[in-house]
Amino acid sequence: MGTGKKAVVLLSGGLDSCVTLSLALQDYQVAIMHANYGQRTEDRELEAFNTIADFYNITTDHRLVIDQRHLAEIGGSALTRSDIPVPEADLDSDEIPSTYVPFRNANLLSAAAAWAEELGAAAIFIGAVEEDSSGYPDCRRAFYDAFETAIDVGTRSETKIKIITPIINLSKAKIITKGFELKSPLHLTWSCYLNADTPCARCDSCALRERAFREANAHDPILAS
Amino acid sequence: MGTGKKAVVLLSGGLDSCVTLSLALQDYQVAIMHANYGQRTEDRELEAFNTIADFYNITTDHRLVIDQRHLAEIGGSALTRSDIPVPEADLDSDEIPSTYVPFRNANLLSAAAAWAEELGAAAIFIGAVEEDSSGYPDCRRAFYDAFETAIDVGTRSETKIKIITPIINLSKAKIITKGFELKSPLHLTWSCYLNADTPCARCDSCALRERAFREANAHDPILAS
Repeated sequence: MGTGKKAVVLLSGGLDSCVTLSLALQDYQVAIMHANYGQRTEDRELEAFNTIADFYNITTDHRLVIDQRHLAEIGGSALTRSDIPVPEADLDSDEIPSTYVPFRNANLLSAAAAWAEELGAAAIFIGAVEEDSSGYPDCRRAFYDAFETAIDVGTRSETKIKIITPIINLSKAKIITKGFELKSPLHLTWSCYLNADTPCARCDSCALRERAFREANAHDPILAS
Repeated sequence: MGTGKKAVVLLSGGLDSCVTLSLALQDYQVAIMHANYGQRTEDRELEAFNTIADFYNITTDHRLVIDQRHLAEIGGSALTRSDIPVPEADLDSDEIPSTYVPFRNANLLSAAAAWAEELGAAAIFIGAVEEDSSGYPDCRRAFYDAFETAIDVGTRSETKIKIITPIINLSKAKIITKGFELKSPLHLTWSCYLNADTPCARCDSCALRERAFREANAHDPILAS
């Protein structure tokens, strides 16, 4: 579990956050946070969160599942609204896709920062990826720098919390390679936006995952071999 | 309802947010947000929110009540934990009091910003007060400046949302005077941290309110005359 330094790690249950957790565990004692925000595959993601946590023997008092369903009520995203279809993948588009949940990562980080301050943690890890993030504005390092400043100004003077984005400049293929190096439990991760049993293979998230495993010359362990 | 410009107003149901709403209504079409975060007087505050909203004929589709109970789970505050007593008022202390909820306003602002982006709103109003805020670090304008930058960087490029803190430099007595000028429904507000029927008259929030009405030479309309 590393040294005594503590960190809060945001763990959605997808590939990126799983590898981010493996990286955090090299240097920190971790507490992990997961958000339900009314996404279609909420239960499947929570299952991934818990099985990954079990894999790493993270005790239940170091797991926090928070309710952010207001993000679904506020709407605006195909991820949370049943009346907006999840689009078929279009990896070449520069547009912000309809799966964008407004300011989602800020909502997650605010909760993580509150917990981090309470725990005396020195860092928050988030597995944001700038290149492969489909253009979501809250996946860019500039946003995390701005948010880190807001945390610094808005918490007790003795509280110093870094936001660490260890994979933000990696391609998804490199993240997968890194995951295999670290023996990260990629077989327990879930990425699909649409289904909860077998990946749909058609949404942006499935398409990115499939392309990345191909580029990494690796077999995706969640698929039949 | 002012012009066509929209704003999201955070409305706890206390004095400060009530006067802030009255100020916002001078220039904006408003949508109001309230958070339940496991505070002891949650139901009473929600009642104040709804009666103030009724007073101003704000339709239910412009009201949003969000769940931020993770702030209570995270704990650390006498406002949300039954095992930490709400302290008796000490208005001369420079310490951050035990009623501090870590990074609470950032959690509220993140949700407000998500809604504001979805509504195309130009502003978020929050009734933070620097002087009377008992030293909470997330009540200072420097924090709102930092958070405004984070919103700017973390949302769509066309989204521009100002955080307006119209009473941040006012004393509570001046806020009350302003409220009477604007015919703000101060009689519907609730401030006490402890009780839900009659104000305890002993917590920080009651003490600040009592002192402020005295300084404003006014009778508090929620008290028997």
